[in-house]
Amino acid sequence: MTGSDIITLLGADWTGCEDLIRKSLRSDIGLLNSINDASLSNSGKQLRPKLALLTARCLGGTNGDSLHYAAAVELLHNATLFHDDVADSSSLRRGRPTLSALMGPNAAVLVGDYWLARAVDLIIETTHRTDAFKMFSATLSHLAEGEMLQLEKASGADTSEEDYLRIIYCKTASLFETACTTAALSVDAPKELCYAASRFGRATGLAFQIRDDIFDYLDDGQIGKPVGIDLKEQKITLPLLGVLQSAPDEADLRARVRDIPQHPEYVAELRSYVCGHGGIEYAMRRLDDFIGEALEALEAFPASPERDALAEIARYNAIRKV
Amino acid sequence: MTGSDIITLLGADWTGCEDLIRKSLRSDIGLLNSINDASLSNSGKQLRPKLALLTARCLGGTNGDSLHYAAAVELLHNATLFHDDVADSSSLRRGRPTLSALMGPNAAVLVGDYWLARAVDLIIETTHRTDAFKMFSATLSHLAEGEMLQLEKASGADTSEEDYLRIIYCKTASLFETACTTAALSVDAPKELCYAASRFGRATGLAFQIRDDIFDYLDDGQIGKPVGIDLKEQKITLPLLGVLQSAPDEADLRARVRDIPQHPEYVAELRSYVCGHGGIEYAMRRLDDFIGEALEALEAFPASPERDALAEIARYNAIRKV
Repeated sequence: MTGSDIITLLGADWTGCEDLIRKSLRSDIGLLNSINDASLSNSGKQLRPKLALLTARCLGGTNGDSLHYAAAVELLHNATLFHDDVADSSSLRRGRPTLSALMGPNAAVLVGDYWLARAVDLIIETTHRTDAFKMFSATLSHLAEGEMLQLEKASGADTSEEDYLRIIYCKTASLFETACTTAALSVDAPKELCYAASRFGRATGLAFQIRDDIFDYLDDGQIGKPVGIDLKEQKITLPLLGVLQSAPDEADLRARVRDIPQHPEYVAELRSYVCGHGGIEYAMRRLDDFIGEALEALEAFPASPERDALAEIARYNAIRKV
Repeated sequence: MTGSDIITLLGADWTGCEDLIRKSLRSDIGLLNSINDASLSNSGKQLRPKLALLTARCLGGTNGDSLHYAAAVELLHNATLFHDDVADSSSLRRGRPTLSALMGPNAAVLVGDYWLARAVDLIIETTHRTDAFKMFSATLSHLAEGEMLQLEKASGADTSEEDYLRIIYCKTASLFETACTTAALSVDAPKELCYAASRFGRATGLAFQIRDDIFDYLDDGQIGKPVGIDLKEQKITLPLLGVLQSAPDEADLRARVRDIPQHPEYVAELRSYVCGHGGIEYAMRRLDDFIGEALEALEAFPASPERDALAEIARYNAIRKV
């Protein structure tokens, strides 16, 4: 099942969600509208609203709140991308120059703030569900905390696998979890199904980020953004952690990460060490574990084409090339 | 009545609000906590939560929601300061180096996002008042829109006084208005008093920003941040608009603003032109108009020490030196 099959399956729910996003972003400032339009036309995989809408349909059928939550999740995700591109000084995103690279960090900060504001607006337009509001609000904090934790750990080069999992939960999996859980809440699903949705979203998000972190060690030029960036910024991700844990010279390797600012040549050295010592395979195994957990959680959902699509998205993390 | 008199008047409401802010920011990420603590220890005038608490007391007495709203307003304000310092590449704020200058734009973006997230969290912890939620959400959008509009106008150097008022409403007065209006809503004040609170907040905020924009034309070295910044960034503010409107060579002056990137020496030239042709006096007259409007709106409030304090804050804009 491809992305466009899922869009066909979602039908009017998908177009309704897209309409909400477009309407919500509409401003009477010309510059802002052109930036928004350019961004919407290069919108990526839109996995999070797909997960949200599929979950809501699976657990009872969408309503206005489901669509609002799904649209808000996608706006929040894009808001963090604008801000990440400032934080990482990234020049490319989805194969195109970032807003930050094109118009400077100031525009990227403001546009990110605007998308975030519009997401909050969509959320408060819904029925007041304390649980859902709390989840969105916690995720907002997590998104900033994950990146801060990464920044804190980077300077000491002492990230453990536990730290890593916490970082990727905060910066990625938390929003996947919120997408699925608030979808379940929007249709007033029973508690155990909300819990299953939460577990599915969390595991799928962790797998997604691990796959992204693996990409940074490959260099097939097909993934639409520069590779080797994480190490350059002293971010210790799962492929490196996999080799560190069994390396006889762990302290030595960590010292190399710490010294990257003075020795940029260590980046290439460390990358080939990781690839030559099973780091990618280690990360792929952990990724498979999380896919397994996601599929297991999904068994609680009633069988339906939507559940199949959710399983497909979870499995897709193992094979995706972008 | 000084700032510390107001704090004495507010008593337990003030310490309660400060506690909420501190507790809300607490994270288990060490780096984030030290940045937050440093920022809280250099917290500026905290006018917005003072306005909020005084308004709530004036119109019925504070409750938990009033304190939450006041704390959220202060967090939102600081979140935008972190982001503004990235956008403006400012090196100083309140007489100290900005976070952006100290730790790079990435930290400033993330810390701003975190404060914003915590503000949203405080808001959703309150009773669900659709009006108040809507106001906060609209202000979030305004804050980003004001800066974007300024960015859009700067490149063409064609800002009108109407544009200017819209920009400063969005980037400053909107949050003052929200501080006062949500305070009135928190105590279930009657409609006409909510309206008066709104008008008072809006006019006070406009006066506040006009005073700030006048500072940028002075150079007494006492205001804790660099001057002449607005013109350098091609921002046309009220002192310049005042002389443009009566200048025989308006088009010529605007062309100079447009050419500042190529001719940085125009900044000093334009500044002395503005100061020599009554631009400061023009801006001061408009500032006085808004103070008058704020004081007029305040007449609807019941007489009380809190109302006197609100009037004092509005008037303070005409004389403040920082």
